[in-house]
Amino acid sequence: MDKLKKIIVERGEIKEGNILKVDSFLNHQLDVEFLYEMGEEIYKLFKDRNITKILTIEVSGIAIAAMAALHFKVPVVFAKKSESLNLDKDIYKGKVVSYTKSKEYNIMISKKYLNENDKLLIIDDFLAEGNAMKALIELSEQAGASVEGISIAIEKGFQNGGNYLRSMGYNLKCLTTIEEMKDGKITFK
Amino acid sequence: MDKLKKIIVERGEIKEGNILKVDSFLNHQLDVEFLYEMGEEIYKLFKDRNITKILTIEVSGIAIAAMAALHFKVPVVFAKKSESLNLDKDIYKGKVVSYTKSKEYNIMISKKYLNENDKLLIIDDFLAEGNAMKALIELSEQAGASVEGISIAIEKGFQNGGNYLRSMGYNLKCLTTIEEMKDGKITFK
Repeated sequence: MDKLKKIIVERGEIKEGNILKVDSFLNHQLDVEFLYEMGEEIYKLFKDRNITKILTIEVSGIAIAAMAALHFKVPVVFAKKSESLNLDKDIYKGKVVSYTKSKEYNIMISKKYLNENDKLLIIDDFLAEGNAMKALIELSEQAGASVEGISIAIEKGFQNGGNYLRSMGYNLKCLTTIEEMKDGKITFK
Repeated sequence: MDKLKKIIVERGEIKEGNILKVDSFLNHQLDVEFLYEMGEEIYKLFKDRNITKILTIEVSGIAIAAMAALHFKVPVVFAKKSESLNLDKDIYKGKVVSYTKSKEYNIMISKKYLNENDKLLIIDDFLAEGNAMKALIELSEQAGASVEGISIAIEKGFQNGGNYLRSMGYNLKCLTTIEEMKDGKITFK
């Protein structure tokens, strides 16, 4: 998506450890009109897959998933990272190793909101090593739902998540794939 | 908002400790088309206030804030609850006591995304004791921004947050106010 590449170059910041900061539009401040356009782009990529639900993970996936869901006219379910009095006891559960937070955590979804009739599109802001994605797929499998597609705003093509998911046969389509981040310069695939 | 009252009665669940679960449409599974309507309702209430930015707090505020922001055509900024490699060092910071999670935590916003020219509308899913709201107001004050309005999907009118905010002179408009939850029955104001 050319507009996304342009915005990443103009508004993104490269930080130590191959971190790309896009918090001016994607995951702290939200440019909702642009997120709506990204949602439309995702819709175009997966509109023929009879998606029944969009699955994502708190926090950064929620806004883009919700915008895509407006186009698909289906609900979003987001996996939660922490226990709360509000969460059901009857849950699907998986484990994630976070790259940006350097820690492990569980993710959970109430069994009420995923089932074997669901045709899921999984959406997230970033794909790096694919650890969050593996956990979301695991939850989908626990529910017996089918993963019809995976769409990510920004794939870090120099990390392993994308290749892993493609090698497993998942229908992965990313709005942009970064080939390299070096000396403050971003090269797209 | 009559449709919201109807959906709360039909799809909400009352749990011990005056907890109202609305995770089938508002904060776990997201009924995005209905959230979009709620956003439109909020727009009608505050469209004359020249809002420049919508302020909310992760996690549950994000989807409804983003939907409202589509109508206002302004960005959302959401306060973060945890440190991350992705967060700036230069931040506004406040403290929240959570009712549903029984703990204290800090919330943070990068100084880049709030400033003294901002006219803010603060949005959240629930208002109970108003602790998250007080912290968001504190961050707004640190930035020198003006709080033009506060809009909440569901006010628990039997707790103190709403009365406190009104007594402080804030322009608080809630889409629904619950007067009482008793024996599984919800009474609206």
